[in-house]
Amino acid sequence: MAVSDSTSSTVVDVVGVVLAGGIGSRLYPASRGHRPKQFLSLFGDRSFLTRTVDRLRGVTDTILILTRDAFAETVREQVSDVTVITEPVGRDTGPAALYATHYVEETYGDDAVVLLAPSDHVVGAAFDTAVRRMSAVAMNTNRLVTLGVAPTRPETGYGYIEPAATINSINGLNDNAVSWKSIQSFHEKPEVETAKKYIEAGHYWNAGIFAWRPAVFNTVAADSPLAPLQTALQNNTSESVADVFAASDSQSVDRAIFEQSEATAVVPTDMMWDDIGTWDAFDRLATQDELITENINTQTASAEDEHSDTTTREETVTVGDVEVEMIDSTDNIIVGNGSHISTVGVSGLIIVTWNDRTLVVNKDDAQSVRELVSRLRESGLF
Amino acid sequence: MAVSDSTSSTVVDVVGVVLAGGIGSRLYPASRGHRPKQFLSLFGDRSFLTRTVDRLRGVTDTILILTRDAFAETVREQVSDVTVITEPVGRDTGPAALYATHYVEETYGDDAVVLLAPSDHVVGAAFDTAVRRMSAVAMNTNRLVTLGVAPTRPETGYGYIEPAATINSINGLNDNAVSWKSIQSFHEKPEVETAKKYIEAGHYWNAGIFAWRPAVFNTVAADSPLAPLQTALQNNTSESVADVFAASDSQSVDRAIFEQSEATAVVPTDMMWDDIGTWDAFDRLATQDELITENINTQTASAEDEHSDTTTREETVTVGDVEVEMIDSTDNIIVGNGSHISTVGVSGLIIVTWNDRTLVVNKDDAQSVRELVSRLRESGLF
Repeated sequence: MAVSDSTSSTVVDVVGVVLAGGIGSRLYPASRGHRPKQFLSLFGDRSFLTRTVDRLRGVTDTILILTRDAFAETVREQVSDVTVITEPVGRDTGPAALYATHYVEETYGDDAVVLLAPSDHVVGAAFDTAVRRMSAVAMNTNRLVTLGVAPTRPETGYGYIEPAATINSINGLNDNAVSWKSIQSFHEKPEVETAKKYIEAGHYWNAGIFAWRPAVFNTVAADSPLAPLQTALQNNTSESVADVFAASDSQSVDRAIFEQSEATAVVPTDMMWDDIGTWDAFDRLATQDELITENINTQTASAEDEHSDTTTREETVTVGDVEVEMIDSTDNIIVGNGSHISTVGVSGLIIVTWNDRTLVVNKDDAQSVRELVSRLRESGLF
Repeated sequence: MAVSDSTSSTVVDVVGVVLAGGIGSRLYPASRGHRPKQFLSLFGDRSFLTRTVDRLRGVTDTILILTRDAFAETVREQVSDVTVITEPVGRDTGPAALYATHYVEETYGDDAVVLLAPSDHVVGAAFDTAVRRMSAVAMNTNRLVTLGVAPTRPETGYGYIEPAATINSINGLNDNAVSWKSIQSFHEKPEVETAKKYIEAGHYWNAGIFAWRPAVFNTVAADSPLAPLQTALQNNTSESVADVFAASDSQSVDRAIFEQSEATAVVPTDMMWDDIGTWDAFDRLATQDELITENINTQTASAEDEHSDTTTREETVTVGDVEVEMIDSTDNIIVGNGSHISTVGVSGLIIVTWNDRTLVVNKDDAQSVRELVSRLRESGLF
């Protein structure tokens, strides 16, 4: 879509930049070193990446995918009609955002809006409206814009955005008012009690979806930890870019840029959003009516014992292409790709088979899959 | 080996008859409808069947394998130099024993000793001596002989043999005395308290290993539920044999023959023996020094929490060709064929992957795999 600039009456491009260089290791063994999360098709035919790009087609004028060299071929196979650019090395979203913003500025000019989005999250239908609003705010306020998702639970795995109290408004698409707030601060993964307080105080989840104009971004970057990389990009020698990129600290764009600036804005939304970071996320997704949940099903074991523990959920959630036979089994998550999995007398487990790999993990330990993967990586087995 | 008949001074053949028509369904998914337990190689290169036959080579003069048509080809692949006969239909060990005895009598004469053994059990090195003793008693006493294994635990899954108090003796191989007792009664799978009493009373486990001369067996069979099948076999028309076989009740040889006779004997042994009926048997086998335990290993997870529950065993037993990575996991049994299995935070589970099938079962429910298999069979998936 084109966004009209209410101050200058010019029409500018919104360039969707999809970050597709990550791994998503906690979805092992579906995710692997050579097959990161964004390439997985857990919900039907289309991968996370393909779904992300298809979503952005309706609300951006052009789309770039930023990934790493090792994944570029797979990206092109999954999304053949979109420009793919590769970063020299993975250093989290901060350097990646600068790298992509520089590319957008060079290619589409300084009036473009960069709309940065992860490639491996699940979002609801309200995404379209949310992105249009973010783009309008980025175009018309000279601010760095982030999306603030209304929390639905005291999640400890997400970052939170603390907004200012004042509600601002601009005219957006079709002259509908778009509300935004300036940002007081970002809070990383809190304890559960703190998360509850954040929710009461009206904080938002940080979904990692951002919008800005290159000039606004670059002004902040020049006075940020990303300044050396910015200089290298402006001097435009690919060798020094690679060197400086490699020498950069890994840091998020929230920390490296947004926290350095007073000129930030959050656009609130109540859209459904989940980063599906860990396997236990599928318990939530199975109950999301809004979501396209092809290949996510619930199934109840025919138990002989009727006196089952009422504090556990009866259903088992199955994900992907998997046939399941269960006896006296409740409250499990079972995942496979062309697998046949049987369970007898087990509860509260996540069971994943993917090609030649199998994982059995207690639901309470879904986060520890990261530790498992780091061990496998040490052995060259990830 | 040849057994000398002390009464007639003739030398007779001991014919090993290996029963290989069963399924062993509780070792699913390693065992499947087309790949029953006796064909599995869980301990290295050789299958249960191959190990059984190799064991018998040293203590019998010739070996027959009795199986069903569907398995005959696989039997010949695994044991190419042994005669394979097939029964018309599976009806437990009673009809099979009669069928095999008739074949032995026709082929090797009435002076042979039939030594009947299952093809899917694990036994210790004392097997050789035990079989020689059984054969000697069968040759010299005109009795139906069974092997009585000294119990090592109050197992509820086995049958027990109650012997008479009197100890009898004959001269066996090399004039060593061989002790035997007559049998009071057979007791099927008892409750655990009853099993404890059986052990105190000096009962033996019934390992399903038997010896007899055809004439002794036939005399009892003529007045047993197997009489119609015996008549059909003697009349020697294959069609009527198949019909009568199919019309026979499924019943064990202990019940159909031994319990019909006063002329029975048990030869006691303290050899190691296990029928490995269910996956949890591997907890026992892992601690059996006597056994050739290639491909059975124990492994302890490196847990971050040192305060683990001291009532559970720390070790996980791995069986077969399986690589394992564990975090905070204890007391599991993990089985695979070329598999890589990871666990996080789980205890007391049996996890088996075999080709495209996976099973996760609570150790306490290992017996219920039978129920699982009966469901899979109904769906044509076993």
